[in-house]
Amino acid sequence: MFIPPLAPVYRHKGSTLAHDCAAATSRLAAAPDGFARRRRATPRAPLRMRHKHHGHREHTVLEVRAPSKTYPILFYEKTCMNDVAAFAPFIKGRAVLIVTNDTVATFYLERLRHTLDNCPGVDSVEVFVMPDGEEYKNMRTLNAILDMCAQARLDRQCALVALGGGVVGDVTGFAASVYLRGVPFIQVPTTLLAMVDSAVGGKTAVNHPMGKNLIGTFYQPEAVIADMSTLNTLDDRQLSAGIAEVIKYGLIRDATFLEWCEANVPRLMARDPAALRYAAEQSCRYKADVVAADERENGLRAILNLGHTFGHAIEAGTGYGSWLHGEAVATGMAMAAEMSRRLGHLTEADVRRVEAVLTEANLPVRPPPSMTLETFLAYMASDKKVVRGKIRLVLLERLGQAVVTADYDRQVLVDTIEYYRKLYDALPRDYERRLAHLRLPTEGERDAAVAREEASSE
Amino acid sequence: MFIPPLAPVYRHKGSTLAHDCAAATSRLAAAPDGFARRRRATPRAPLRMRHKHHGHREHTVLEVRAPSKTYPILFYEKTCMNDVAAFAPFIKGRAVLIVTNDTVATFYLERLRHTLDNCPGVDSVEVFVMPDGEEYKNMRTLNAILDMCAQARLDRQCALVALGGGVVGDVTGFAASVYLRGVPFIQVPTTLLAMVDSAVGGKTAVNHPMGKNLIGTFYQPEAVIADMSTLNTLDDRQLSAGIAEVIKYGLIRDATFLEWCEANVPRLMARDPAALRYAAEQSCRYKADVVAADERENGLRAILNLGHTFGHAIEAGTGYGSWLHGEAVATGMAMAAEMSRRLGHLTEADVRRVEAVLTEANLPVRPPPSMTLETFLAYMASDKKVVRGKIRLVLLERLGQAVVTADYDRQVLVDTIEYYRKLYDALPRDYERRLAHLRLPTEGERDAAVAREEASSE
Repeated sequence: MFIPPLAPVYRHKGSTLAHDCAAATSRLAAAPDGFARRRRATPRAPLRMRHKHHGHREHTVLEVRAPSKTYPILFYEKTCMNDVAAFAPFIKGRAVLIVTNDTVATFYLERLRHTLDNCPGVDSVEVFVMPDGEEYKNMRTLNAILDMCAQARLDRQCALVALGGGVVGDVTGFAASVYLRGVPFIQVPTTLLAMVDSAVGGKTAVNHPMGKNLIGTFYQPEAVIADMSTLNTLDDRQLSAGIAEVIKYGLIRDATFLEWCEANVPRLMARDPAALRYAAEQSCRYKADVVAADERENGLRAILNLGHTFGHAIEAGTGYGSWLHGEAVATGMAMAAEMSRRLGHLTEADVRRVEAVLTEANLPVRPPPSMTLETFLAYMASDKKVVRGKIRLVLLERLGQAVVTADYDRQVLVDTIEYYRKLYDALPRDYERRLAHLRLPTEGERDAAVAREEASSE
Repeated sequence: MFIPPLAPVYRHKGSTLAHDCAAATSRLAAAPDGFARRRRATPRAPLRMRHKHHGHREHTVLEVRAPSKTYPILFYEKTCMNDVAAFAPFIKGRAVLIVTNDTVATFYLERLRHTLDNCPGVDSVEVFVMPDGEEYKNMRTLNAILDMCAQARLDRQCALVALGGGVVGDVTGFAASVYLRGVPFIQVPTTLLAMVDSAVGGKTAVNHPMGKNLIGTFYQPEAVIADMSTLNTLDDRQLSAGIAEVIKYGLIRDATFLEWCEANVPRLMARDPAALRYAAEQSCRYKADVVAADERENGLRAILNLGHTFGHAIEAGTGYGSWLHGEAVATGMAMAAEMSRRLGHLTEADVRRVEAVLTEANLPVRPPPSMTLETFLAYMASDKKVVRGKIRLVLLERLGQAVVTADYDRQVLVDTIEYYRKLYDALPRDYERRLAHLRLPTEGERDAAVAREEASSE
């Protein structure tokens, strides 16, 4: 079991004031070591601080230095839902609106509502509870949240608090970015996927029937407050979906971290707190680096979408809410690896490694049979990365190194999708129902499929 | 008739290339005189250039240097709707979507569609025609535009073109800011109000039943292309509504310009091209100054809302579309002037001057009888400038100098609104139907109202 050391570490001691966390953050921003520059050519790893306050719970802070805003991600290993000191520094006004879903509400809503109600200066805490599921991440839910903001007469000093996973965070962030042309909001992610990906970096969105996340904004939160203990109430399927995004960072940025994932998926699945916190912090560090260099996805940031163009097509093509986002991304990453192999970048063994680590995390690596070539191509054609009709894809030059390109033979894309179609005969009959997480094709199945493919292309 | 000279003027001669306009703009941005700095403490007047190209029509250019983007406003005195060279520099992709309304479409849509179709590289021009009227500036129209973008599979290299007045520009800009998290858009204002105010500065919005412009973004266009000849097809009422915003700049920024307005309202009403162009250019210059200093309305920019808090209440309270925005703002400015008088800033004569110049432009200076005190206060309470329950108002310290304040005796606000209620008895019976543009109260009516008010407050 290999856990690389975290560095650089900055230890901050002594004060008991609740808002020291925010104060320390701003001191950090003004530090003379050059970190305070808002843009730099080659992003450095954001500085990490470890707080050991007597006045509130131990937590670590990672800073995101996006060009439009610098803000902290706070990781609490023990729950902070009762801790006024964790939230108060980021609440500036009198009115708070918590947005959550009915699953998360059961566990955390009352505690968080009570905590926010006790923040200094707060005199009203409204609550918006949406149904749980990707299928509710749409303009209708956005409108309902905005109606509530308007009816509660929230002013620009309010705070919207997103308590939940990626769906809640994305739609709440979008609402915050357009209500009164922008009000403050705080991410309180309760899924691993949200902690390592969607809550960080300021992408907000809702889905459109024509495609995933087609409508949204770039809008950074005031803070991301990650209560790692909430992962104990996450169901296994959601946990696996989050691990998909963790593995993604290894694939696109760091082969050493991929090795760590390969060794530690069982610990993550068993919810080992140290492993989860390391995975979350490391993932956020990669993401913060990329966002600092390219907030609005003019270039580099697109690599974070490894597997997403295939994955979004699966999500949209199967109807949002059937596959989890992380599951679709896992399959998309396997498909991107397979396509990278066909373009000569990866070896067969690399592809098997990708499939193995995902399968170990109980993630699907095959699209469902309902996804025909036509369905894939139609949804991929409305991807946001499409330019002048060319579908830009994130592919792997090698494990640990991604590349964004529209410069590939389109036939290879078609062949890749068709390859998975031909695997269907070898798949269990109830694959679609089971989402096919559960096994890799056998050597024989794979060879047979390759043989069928070669026969048909002659 | 007094027209102050325009300065500084930069003359650019010689080239016939269509895109020289854009090239000149970027040269200007790189000029060594310090204009290229993106932020400065005290904004300078944006530099103005006069082009005399052989290859395309004469126009003037004013640059808006917002912190998030620098872009030109191009004023064409003769129509540019047929002129590919006017639009081509700002169209980067293959697909264009024109958004317009059914009134404007009658006059300009086919010509502009044909022109855009002939821009190099463009291979599809879609059209979205909305009904004319403020009541359609809502989330429903926004959704319909976004549906069309998605169904046409527009990519991030597309261009949305807003052909129309403030409603079309605001909702198109909003759509452009959220589709694929932001695509380019071009403002082609066809009303005086849009040319001098709404198309410039990057505020986008839709209305909410709870209040005007409650939902939107800050998002700058690629360019504002003002074809001044379109003002010839504008109806008189719309023209007057635009003049209200022109007069506003005099009231908040420049008493000399207010004098110019007082002398030249008849020329503006008669659509004298030189007067209209001067008014538009001067207004845009004031606005560009303010936007350069405070793009996201953290401070100074709020002065542009003189009359808007009262005016938005009238628009929302009477149902959007009954009063034009400029009419409501005119009445709101008269009310703000009256309230400023009650706070000791303006004299009775100042208030009469404000009312006189607005009335000269055929604008209403009295709210309709349906607007009760309760209605005013309810809608004003959901204004975006409300902070911690206090309604911040733009008032006049003197003619030519505005101030934003929440530090006033609330009773004075109540008294101001009540004062107008008491004037109703002296108003013509069909005031509401006629929008009461047509006359000031007589001396006797005014004195009687003041007497009634004083009697009731004893």
